[in-house]
Amino acid sequence: MYALKTVLLTTMLFGFSLPKATGQQVTSLDWELGYNRDAASEVLNWIPAVVPGAVQLDIARAEKYDTWYYAENWKDYLWMEDAFFTYRASFDRPALKTGERVYFYAGGIDYIFDILLNDESIFHQEGMFTPVKLDLTDRLKSLNEIRIVIHPVPKSRKLPADRSQANQSVKPAVSYGWDWHPRLVPSGIWDECGLITEPAGAIASFDLSYKLSNNLDLADISFRAGGKKICGCRYSWTLQDDTDQVILEKEGVCRNDSIIFNAVLKDPVLWWPHDQGKPALYTSRLRTTDNEGRQIRLHESKVGFRRVRLVMNSQADPDGFPKSRRLPPIQVEINGRRIFCKGTNWVNPEVFPGIITAVRYEELIDRALEANFNMFRIWGGGIVNKESFYDLCDRKGMLVWQEFPLACNNYPDEPHYLEILKQESSSIISRLKKHPCLTLWCGGNELFNSWGGMTDQSLALRLLNSQCLELDPGTPFIPTSPIEGMGHGHYVFRDFDSGEEVFARMNRSRFTAYTEFGMPAPASVAILKTIIPPDELWPPAPGGSWESHHAYKAWVGNTWLNQDMIEDYFGKSATLEELVAHGQLIQGEGYKYIFEEARRQKPYCSMVLNWCYNEPWPTAANNSLVSWPNIPKPGFYQVSKACRPVLASARLQKFTWMPGEKFVTELWMLNDSQQEVKTGKVTASLVTGSLKVFLGTWQYNNLRANANLKGQEFTIDIPDWPAGEFKLLLEAEGKPEWNSEYTLMISQ
Amino acid sequence: MYALKTVLLTTMLFGFSLPKATGQQVTSLDWELGYNRDAASEVLNWIPAVVPGAVQLDIARAEKYDTWYYAENWKDYLWMEDAFFTYRASFDRPALKTGERVYFYAGGIDYIFDILLNDESIFHQEGMFTPVKLDLTDRLKSLNEIRIVIHPVPKSRKLPADRSQANQSVKPAVSYGWDWHPRLVPSGIWDECGLITEPAGAIASFDLSYKLSNNLDLADISFRAGGKKICGCRYSWTLQDDTDQVILEKEGVCRNDSIIFNAVLKDPVLWWPHDQGKPALYTSRLRTTDNEGRQIRLHESKVGFRRVRLVMNSQADPDGFPKSRRLPPIQVEINGRRIFCKGTNWVNPEVFPGIITAVRYEELIDRALEANFNMFRIWGGGIVNKESFYDLCDRKGMLVWQEFPLACNNYPDEPHYLEILKQESSSIISRLKKHPCLTLWCGGNELFNSWGGMTDQSLALRLLNSQCLELDPGTPFIPTSPIEGMGHGHYVFRDFDSGEEVFARMNRSRFTAYTEFGMPAPASVAILKTIIPPDELWPPAPGGSWESHHAYKAWVGNTWLNQDMIEDYFGKSATLEELVAHGQLIQGEGYKYIFEEARRQKPYCSMVLNWCYNEPWPTAANNSLVSWPNIPKPGFYQVSKACRPVLASARLQKFTWMPGEKFVTELWMLNDSQQEVKTGKVTASLVTGSLKVFLGTWQYNNLRANANLKGQEFTIDIPDWPAGEFKLLLEAEGKPEWNSEYTLMISQ
Repeated sequence: MYALKTVLLTTMLFGFSLPKATGQQVTSLDWELGYNRDAASEVLNWIPAVVPGAVQLDIARAEKYDTWYYAENWKDYLWMEDAFFTYRASFDRPALKTGERVYFYAGGIDYIFDILLNDESIFHQEGMFTPVKLDLTDRLKSLNEIRIVIHPVPKSRKLPADRSQANQSVKPAVSYGWDWHPRLVPSGIWDECGLITEPAGAIASFDLSYKLSNNLDLADISFRAGGKKICGCRYSWTLQDDTDQVILEKEGVCRNDSIIFNAVLKDPVLWWPHDQGKPALYTSRLRTTDNEGRQIRLHESKVGFRRVRLVMNSQADPDGFPKSRRLPPIQVEINGRRIFCKGTNWVNPEVFPGIITAVRYEELIDRALEANFNMFRIWGGGIVNKESFYDLCDRKGMLVWQEFPLACNNYPDEPHYLEILKQESSSIISRLKKHPCLTLWCGGNELFNSWGGMTDQSLALRLLNSQCLELDPGTPFIPTSPIEGMGHGHYVFRDFDSGEEVFARMNRSRFTAYTEFGMPAPASVAILKTIIPPDELWPPAPGGSWESHHAYKAWVGNTWLNQDMIEDYFGKSATLEELVAHGQLIQGEGYKYIFEEARRQKPYCSMVLNWCYNEPWPTAANNSLVSWPNIPKPGFYQVSKACRPVLASARLQKFTWMPGEKFVTELWMLNDSQQEVKTGKVTASLVTGSLKVFLGTWQYNNLRANANLKGQEFTIDIPDWPAGEFKLLLEAEGKPEWNSEYTLMISQ
Repeated sequence: MYALKTVLLTTMLFGFSLPKATGQQVTSLDWELGYNRDAASEVLNWIPAVVPGAVQLDIARAEKYDTWYYAENWKDYLWMEDAFFTYRASFDRPALKTGERVYFYAGGIDYIFDILLNDESIFHQEGMFTPVKLDLTDRLKSLNEIRIVIHPVPKSRKLPADRSQANQSVKPAVSYGWDWHPRLVPSGIWDECGLITEPAGAIASFDLSYKLSNNLDLADISFRAGGKKICGCRYSWTLQDDTDQVILEKEGVCRNDSIIFNAVLKDPVLWWPHDQGKPALYTSRLRTTDNEGRQIRLHESKVGFRRVRLVMNSQADPDGFPKSRRLPPIQVEINGRRIFCKGTNWVNPEVFPGIITAVRYEELIDRALEANFNMFRIWGGGIVNKESFYDLCDRKGMLVWQEFPLACNNYPDEPHYLEILKQESSSIISRLKKHPCLTLWCGGNELFNSWGGMTDQSLALRLLNSQCLELDPGTPFIPTSPIEGMGHGHYVFRDFDSGEEVFARMNRSRFTAYTEFGMPAPASVAILKTIIPPDELWPPAPGGSWESHHAYKAWVGNTWLNQDMIEDYFGKSATLEELVAHGQLIQGEGYKYIFEEARRQKPYCSMVLNWCYNEPWPTAANNSLVSWPNIPKPGFYQVSKACRPVLASARLQKFTWMPGEKFVTELWMLNDSQQEVKTGKVTASLVTGSLKVFLGTWQYNNLRANANLKGQEFTIDIPDWPAGEFKLLLEAEGKPEWNSEYTLMISQ
């Protein structure tokens, strides 16, 4: 029922393999894009194409469409969903040495496509995550043309035009429209693509895996490589540390078209997330030579040794009888150490994945390091990232929770869908499993909630569990987020109906992991001016560019701008600047509280990931910490402070206070570091302008490494200060880097 | 890492296949058992062996051991755990027709064993659920001897001598000692065993599967059969209904050593559990003939068409934010209809599985029908039953929840264990998947509780999920019981510490399924006299036969006799007869209340299965409803009444009342039937001896099919009656078969 069926449109057998080997050069081609806006069958215009990219971007360039992210321009792109597009490129037959083969290679083509060589169909595929590598050698003429015909984007039904149309394909659902993503469904070649020339005896696949001993002092490395006609070639392999010193080496002769050996590394330097140690990487180099000693190819890859497990959260046992199960584990353990995960939900950094670059990835990852984050959840509504993303996370020590492309839909128990899912998940797992940053596989987003509608019995999720077990048994798998004990939401500072604020909500909550929670803020005024036409800018209103950019009718209530709630706290905004400042303040204070309260709930709670980190286009209002392409909102810096390894922190009751009201706060010292914190003092006071009143001083005892300390409760009557903002200041004696402050309001 | 490794001790390649085909005759052999009590290596004595059976039983017969179930005799059998045993049988080479092959076949050998033919090792296996079929033909002499060497029972550690020793094998853990099973670990040949002679062109394997259309009006049947050298044979196949009328037929010629065809059955008569319809079975007959038209073999099997799913329980959505997942589904749906499952936990009906017969199975299943049960949970501490059990459940319409042999242990992520588990689960799934009674696969018992210690990440459970998905995707799988929303326990009428009684406990509980709950009772006096020596019989005391038979120190508190609690309710027992009567009354009232209250919680609750149904030997006190071998306790009849399709039922607060106290009860009508119940009247009254007071009459409205009705609450002051038992009577006007009664106590 789930066998992988490779559809070949001709009787000729083409090679079909996993991604190109490291070090292989892809010769790019000059592509043109053909299309006919009205009739699917006939190409009327050929325009230049940028590869990797998207058909939408080529058309926009050729026909001078306004940029998709301004005003409501995205609507102009909608017709492209339902058209057929054809890429074409001509090339001369390359001069080949004896035994050399030439392949067409594409790292990713989105989503259903045919490939034609010299007008003959040679390949068909559904699925954007399975690379294509086709041996063209024996079919080449002196001048050749390759064509790729891209089918209309998959839709399981005509209406409604929303994410549910993506529920029978392995195409990320987000581009069908989300509360922070326009309806813009990309198509086309979205990753590296071109020709590869391979020498005789080239290695086509290789896999380096390892098993760590229980006490982590031995890495038993299994090396397997294979290829056609490599039998008889010699190989030499080295493992080098980060000073390029050779630690292990092997050499031998290839037998039976494969190279297989084991090697034992003693006392491996372990890979750690950046806040726990060094993300140590070794370099594996495999050199193959022909029987005259000439080098055929050098294959280089990075290896990080680490053991990852999900272990039981503390206190997850139920009481009494009848007794249910213990909660499922979500406590991450790396190399035997329990890690409190602080991080964020990563979404596509562009609407069109084809234009995401390694530079963009690196800038966004560096920004997350600045936030003191150690984990990204790669949310299942978006793409599985390009390879450079994972290379960077390996290098920089960021943990990656990776989801499959399923989100908020009920993906059916249907054979065709399950076949494609099996194919795509095989490709994804095989590509990513080598990365030490990979911490957790997850079936997808909110599939077990009522709007997802899947259950533990859904065959798609049982299949993904089975695939991960078979291909990458060393990495944990969860079927979706949230599972029992974990929570998603809320996504506002104050509940629309009950009026409950973030403080009360978090104080009563008790979850093993907070893996999504939002706190919306408007974008900065400078950004708003780049997306909202001047005549719409002030005052904001539903129905136009503000709504297109998610300020209105995005989710329930007046999300995401929430102007009514902001003005309820701060009074009517006189200017856009004022509205933005108040909204951004609310975001920062709300996020800060959630991060800190989740940390107080350690060790029962083991993870806190906000929704969301970044965004795929410039939104007018959104829960993101970073505006597109990489501009932090003020709340980003509040979150960064809440995620410091060590800090003084306060439990709060509410945001707005009346003079004379009894203000109560409970002080804590939070410590996620591996260092013990010596005894010290924290002084709490309230301030506004130059006025300051002291609440008291808490002399705290030693904090153990990776453990918090609950401190003293202080009470004071709110002074008779003027209406407006005031702050609770926590000052750690001699350690200003541990100080914290909370902005609150006095109302008269 | 998980590939199935078939260990062959010789270089000769032996056939290794799935169970014998239906209709194959197994010629039994005359076996002897050899052993040496002290030295493992050398056989000193040969004694007659009964096959199937157990080495323990052969030795007990030969050496005149007292029966294992009397007094503390089980201790005499302990040494056998650690010895090697050898079965031997001699046989003449059978006269074979051209092309005929002769096989050694064993349906199950427990647990690690070698097979030798004429002193040469030819096979080794670990695992009691994988049948053995070895082609001996080319190695036979005129006189042959086959030997089976049984290794000591597997133990992962020397101490403690308890179930944890079974945590690295696929041997049922129960025989290592449980709170109702003696430490008696069986070994030996436990299922059919002997020689099979197969004609040339015999079919070795066949598989009939089907897919029902969404609206259940078409069954798309896939038929596959295979064997060596069957190519060229003719086959004819018929499907016949229960009147032997041929409904479908196919014929053809075998190609490529296989027979493969599809057939579509229109409007199949569906299989239903007995209380929902008829358990309709068809008969599949495959006849193969050689090219001269002579019949090679007739293969006959039963087919039942049904669709089984686990669907969401009602009201399983969490409220508010942060929001966790919906509870996992445990609502059984058969053929599109939600079924409330009422049943029980089935345990091994014998300590030695080798002596379980189809007759015993049938008697126990018939008894369960008498209890109005529609489901057995085949608990993972015990064996997977012999084939006749599932045939009977198919025929009689009992649903079967089948667990794999894992229970209350942490089964490790170790390659060897996982290999054997893969082999054994493949055999189990392949054998059972054809049975329409099969409702649910489950990884095992209480694995996600603290005493189990496994989690969703345990590779053994991920492997079982994956195996079930691959081999039987149409049947639901859950990793263990309980999962979230489901409850196990309590196992006493009144909690030891809090004093909370079953009534209050059930009234406050809210679970999607109660899949274990116990209510212990002593065995009848007649049974006690067969297991407890006269001098120990009265008064009962710990330390001797009573304790060996689980009356003391079985679980927490004074379980399972609970004499202190019984006497706290009823006063000191003057005789054994009195103690037993009171204990049995408590069991019946407690069980009745749980079954009825779980039914009141429908549809949120969808299942109620007590712990346990039967027992493997005569216990002195146990939660079982039926004493060994098949003697109902009085509580059995109370449960039977509580499971009637339609009944009047009362919600209660407590067991013991004082005269003048305010007695409150809430009346319900319960309906699990597919019929609407017309409006009527229920009268409630209290009675003791000839005294009766009326609480009132509830005129109930029509009850929908498969739905309950909550009725009126009645209150009365408890009359000034003498201390002792009284009853609450519910009388349904004109429907005495729906009447109910509850025994309670008055205390002065």
